[in-house]
Amino acid sequence: MSEKYFGVDIGGTKVMLALVTAEGLTLKRERIETRAEEGPRKVVERIAETMKKIIGGEKVTAVGLGVPGPIDFSRGVVTLAPNLGWKNVAIVDLFAEHFDLPIFLENDALVAAWGEKTLGAGKDFDHFIYMTISTGIGGGLILNGKLYRGAYGAGGEIGHMIIDPSGATCGCGNQGCLEAMASGRALARMGREALEQGQWPEGPSPEGITGSTITNWAKAGDQPSIEILDRQARYLGLGMANLTHLLDPQAFVLGGGVMSAAEILLPRIQAALEDYLMPGYSERLQILQAKLGDIGGALGAAMVARDFGPKN
Amino acid sequence: MSEKYFGVDIGGTKVMLALVTAEGLTLKRERIETRAEEGPRKVVERIAETMKKIIGGEKVTAVGLGVPGPIDFSRGVVTLAPNLGWKNVAIVDLFAEHFDLPIFLENDALVAAWGEKTLGAGKDFDHFIYMTISTGIGGGLILNGKLYRGAYGAGGEIGHMIIDPSGATCGCGNQGCLEAMASGRALARMGREALEQGQWPEGPSPEGITGSTITNWAKAGDQPSIEILDRQARYLGLGMANLTHLLDPQAFVLGGGVMSAAEILLPRIQAALEDYLMPGYSERLQILQAKLGDIGGALGAAMVARDFGPKN
Repeated sequence: MSEKYFGVDIGGTKVMLALVTAEGLTLKRERIETRAEEGPRKVVERIAETMKKIIGGEKVTAVGLGVPGPIDFSRGVVTLAPNLGWKNVAIVDLFAEHFDLPIFLENDALVAAWGEKTLGAGKDFDHFIYMTISTGIGGGLILNGKLYRGAYGAGGEIGHMIIDPSGATCGCGNQGCLEAMASGRALARMGREALEQGQWPEGPSPEGITGSTITNWAKAGDQPSIEILDRQARYLGLGMANLTHLLDPQAFVLGGGVMSAAEILLPRIQAALEDYLMPGYSERLQILQAKLGDIGGALGAAMVARDFGPKN
Repeated sequence: MSEKYFGVDIGGTKVMLALVTAEGLTLKRERIETRAEEGPRKVVERIAETMKKIIGGEKVTAVGLGVPGPIDFSRGVVTLAPNLGWKNVAIVDLFAEHFDLPIFLENDALVAAWGEKTLGAGKDFDHFIYMTISTGIGGGLILNGKLYRGAYGAGGEIGHMIIDPSGATCGCGNQGCLEAMASGRALARMGREALEQGQWPEGPSPEGITGSTITNWAKAGDQPSIEILDRQARYLGLGMANLTHLLDPQAFVLGGGVMSAAEILLPRIQAALEDYLMPGYSERLQILQAKLGDIGGALGAAMVARDFGPKN
């Protein structure tokens, strides 16, 4: 009988859950609402109930948890999760009230990266950078075949690399972070600016324009929207060139909602990379799409529980 | 009897050599001119002669070589060294004509980083970023207590992180690389611009202004020069904040000629870091000066020969 691991990926609006074998086979998966406003204890209670239903009579070896935002993995604490409105939540302790199992906490981008490494697009690579491009931009570094968390567990903040100090203001307070220039939120901002400048006179109100409005219009062939994605791809290529010069990875694995427009974005990102990279890097660098989709974080969390102790 | 290692650091103008014990004690050190224009074979011949004089009757276990520019360490080849005018030089083979010893090739910034890790300011850290700020800006990453080379040995190019796409043109062809904005060469450029704008009416011709002109004037209290270092420190702080968000290191170790103005630069770099870093990072991050000076690369190369095989 193969050992079984449980993965939980807690997001701002939804929680993804998966029961996975040691070989990476998904036995069951589930999706519930987060309702973070009910507070950590309530949320964990609901998650634990769902987990118990899924687990039934099976024996689970360990649980992996992915949460958005910096964590202190040695203490099992979510330091700050703006998307959940949580601060200094001892989430591992809260889960331990329901389960007598080893519980491993990890950042959500890192569990998604580990999912792609073990079960997805990153299988063949020991050095790759996972990027999730959705409302914001997150990242997970796989170096030497392992998660790289940094000395204190707060590394991988690709979205807050400043690439233009006179650029748009970011949620973090700085100007010109990659997230401020090239995320779904940046698409929405550029869309609203284009609207104000007279694009789409028959279009929606500024509030009606989101990142997916622009990606959907672009996919339908709308030229101004394609030009916005063009600018986004230049910034992404610039940020990825910086990361390549620094870490010389084998590949980037790109996920997140914005990648629904991959057929428009990927060739433009590739062209920008070729412009920005010094000789030698571009020929060997692979740009891939993430394979696991929405459930990737939960699968990755289960694989983190399989592969890493809390101190690795 | 302790084992002995030989370190060679080949720079654009000088070659530093050191014979070091396994415990890191320097037995002998030497400095000769590079004269790269004589070609790799001649240069290696002169280095080998000097090495033989230094080694005398001693038994050496292995040799470490630091060279400027990207290398292919698996083949022992210097891919490209603009400062030497060398391209695809099989330097390990050239040394092997003179010595029947294991010879380990490494990038010059990485050997200097490893010197600081084993014998210098980085001793207590498993995660730090070594930066050399001189004519250019180079870097070496120490992650998980080891050199991080990237998948193909060309990582650590901190100087070519683009931080302002409308900034000054860099030697690599891009605009606004950290090196173009904050190196010794950038100080010289800012100095010449200030001269053209009427600073220092009694001053030298534009060609007479170098990076060290500006650092020396600043150290002597010249206000316009201090303001130039101020701008440099802002850019350095921005680049270091990007690196911190990405790799969450314990420390930066800063070396190179520009750091002769450390007393002016360090507090300004610190202030910029505090502005740019997200909450949590700045309190735990240490900014240190490199300890080993000019000989650091050669010492580090010897320690690379001690600690790493060619494939690690």
